[in-house]
Amino acid sequence: MIAEGKLYQTVWMEGSTVFMIDQTLLPFEFKIHECKTHWDTCMAITTMVVRGAGAIGAAAGYAMAQAFIELKDTPYPELLTEARQDIETTRPTAGNLFYAIEEVFKEGLISPDNALKKAKELAAEQVEDSKKIGEYGEELFGEKTTVLTHCNAGWLAFVDYGTALSPIYRAKRQGKEVFVYVDETRPRNQGSRLTAWELKNDNINHFIIPDNAGASLMQEGKIDLIIVGADRIAANGDIANKIGTLEKAIVAKELGIPFYVAAPSSTFDLNCASGKNIPLEIRNQDEVLYQTGIDVNGNKVKILVSSPGSEAFNPSFDVTPAKYITGIITEKGIIKANGRSIKQMMTKKKK
Amino acid sequence: MIAEGKLYQTVWMEGSTVFMIDQTLLPFEFKIHECKTHWDTCMAITTMVVRGAGAIGAAAGYAMAQAFIELKDTPYPELLTEARQDIETTRPTAGNLFYAIEEVFKEGLISPDNALKKAKELAAEQVEDSKKIGEYGEELFGEKTTVLTHCNAGWLAFVDYGTALSPIYRAKRQGKEVFVYVDETRPRNQGSRLTAWELKNDNINHFIIPDNAGASLMQEGKIDLIIVGADRIAANGDIANKIGTLEKAIVAKELGIPFYVAAPSSTFDLNCASGKNIPLEIRNQDEVLYQTGIDVNGNKVKILVSSPGSEAFNPSFDVTPAKYITGIITEKGIIKANGRSIKQMMTKKKK
Repeated sequence: MIAEGKLYQTVWMEGSTVFMIDQTLLPFEFKIHECKTHWDTCMAITTMVVRGAGAIGAAAGYAMAQAFIELKDTPYPELLTEARQDIETTRPTAGNLFYAIEEVFKEGLISPDNALKKAKELAAEQVEDSKKIGEYGEELFGEKTTVLTHCNAGWLAFVDYGTALSPIYRAKRQGKEVFVYVDETRPRNQGSRLTAWELKNDNINHFIIPDNAGASLMQEGKIDLIIVGADRIAANGDIANKIGTLEKAIVAKELGIPFYVAAPSSTFDLNCASGKNIPLEIRNQDEVLYQTGIDVNGNKVKILVSSPGSEAFNPSFDVTPAKYITGIITEKGIIKANGRSIKQMMTKKKK
Repeated sequence: MIAEGKLYQTVWMEGSTVFMIDQTLLPFEFKIHECKTHWDTCMAITTMVVRGAGAIGAAAGYAMAQAFIELKDTPYPELLTEARQDIETTRPTAGNLFYAIEEVFKEGLISPDNALKKAKELAAEQVEDSKKIGEYGEELFGEKTTVLTHCNAGWLAFVDYGTALSPIYRAKRQGKEVFVYVDETRPRNQGSRLTAWELKNDNINHFIIPDNAGASLMQEGKIDLIIVGADRIAANGDIANKIGTLEKAIVAKELGIPFYVAAPSSTFDLNCASGKNIPLEIRNQDEVLYQTGIDVNGNKVKILVSSPGSEAFNPSFDVTPAKYITGIITEKGIIKANGRSIKQMMTKKKK
């Protein structure tokens, strides 16, 4: 998609270096971050320079390829296993991460070149999948549709196009009228910072809202449709996604608003029987207690926004049981959130 | 309650001056704000120097008394009606505000002294009511209870003791073990700033959580009980309270967590048939887009925390239908949230 007047993807690789848009600096600064080693890339994933289910997956695949390149002539093959663990422990909730590592690792055992080729293929496949998700998801849009979304599952989260936002981009390009309510998504404000930035770059009308406002807007009939992304989807259709997703899903069901999850098949983890098996990351309390932004002089500042001395609890993800989900928009079509539909979809060939 | 090692109430009157703890400066600075005229007091209510259902009511009663004192010898009685309107338009959602104005106005027509006496009585009555709410509410607490609360309905919101927090203070004093999860309560962070400050001052264990985390904690069985305040309660038991209350109530009902509202009879408005008749305040978008706090040098700073150029929608309250409310804790006992129970309670004499 276009940023700063140029076509960009969120993460890519040239030679043995991984490049990515630094998402910790957005929306205030647009800068490309370089990772020369697999360890640099691990750090970038952990510190959320790159974030979002798909972009994490792509970065993890590249990191695995970097490790094979770095360790090409090593007499210690166990270093490869260690490197793999480095990458796996960066963000434990992300399904795409494990998928990409596994795929690249298998190829890397043949040759570093194979690993690199596979990592690039996975990223390209993701772009293709995101585009398809946009096409299928767009069918849910009428001539005039108001959508609520949580966190950022746009192109920043998915190499290109995105998942939850991809149908919105597509609907707009098909000439449909779209208005988006963007959940701020505390504590890291991925909604008000990244989704709002994406939508503004694409001239799509939107309002940022506090996360607290969702139920009220649904009650007042202001939301036609909810679409969110997913970090991992279990075999039974339960999904893990950014903290707060569960609230919206329960409220949507109660108030009769369609609630869709958009994710490619690489986000599904058939080894996870249900949401209970998905490990959920707890992050540092400072993300809640402090807030960063820019002051009146344009300087980046970190401020304490809560009562001094109080502690915070900062769970980063929650699990939404399948029963609250109207459907899952995948690159192979829109499916029901249940074991049978998921199994069917996973065995279906891509068009 | 105790603040800075001294006993304080949130708002009080000496001579013709109204004094109040400046809640826009808390938790970073403790300062008493003086209002010499009814207009000063109106400004203090509008700018949230004083906030919270009961404290707004007390301040509005005092402002009305100030107006009678100021206009003692005026040949233009319509100025009193204008002053009344000044006060009424400060915060349109607050039920206690209209109640206090009405009560003081009636007495003021007899004499300014009567107005003053009535305003002080109303504040004293509120303290008494809050204490009683604590006594009744405490019965909901077992030996070890984990409570979730939203916004601030503590003593800062209610002259003294508070409503939602009063049972917590009481339970602790009765030797019960209490742990409180405090919703941050975006966009103004009344939870992480005021409720956390109150709880810390009273040595009550607590965690601040992002508003997004409520459903997840309930799902994990970490919440025994939810208590929130109310800004106005309609005749049918619908309540208006801080934006986000509706979300918690719907989720609590779905996940089987008891959801209580704590409010004195002065918050009930029998002229409002249902929640649909309660006017809901929309506040300035800058409350969402910007955030204030203190920087590393202890200076108060305002920063932009969202994507530059995007707009926000900032509804300040929502309406929770009676069907999601387990019960209402009043100064006359715990009642069901329905028309019959409310009518019965309102006609019952105080003990």
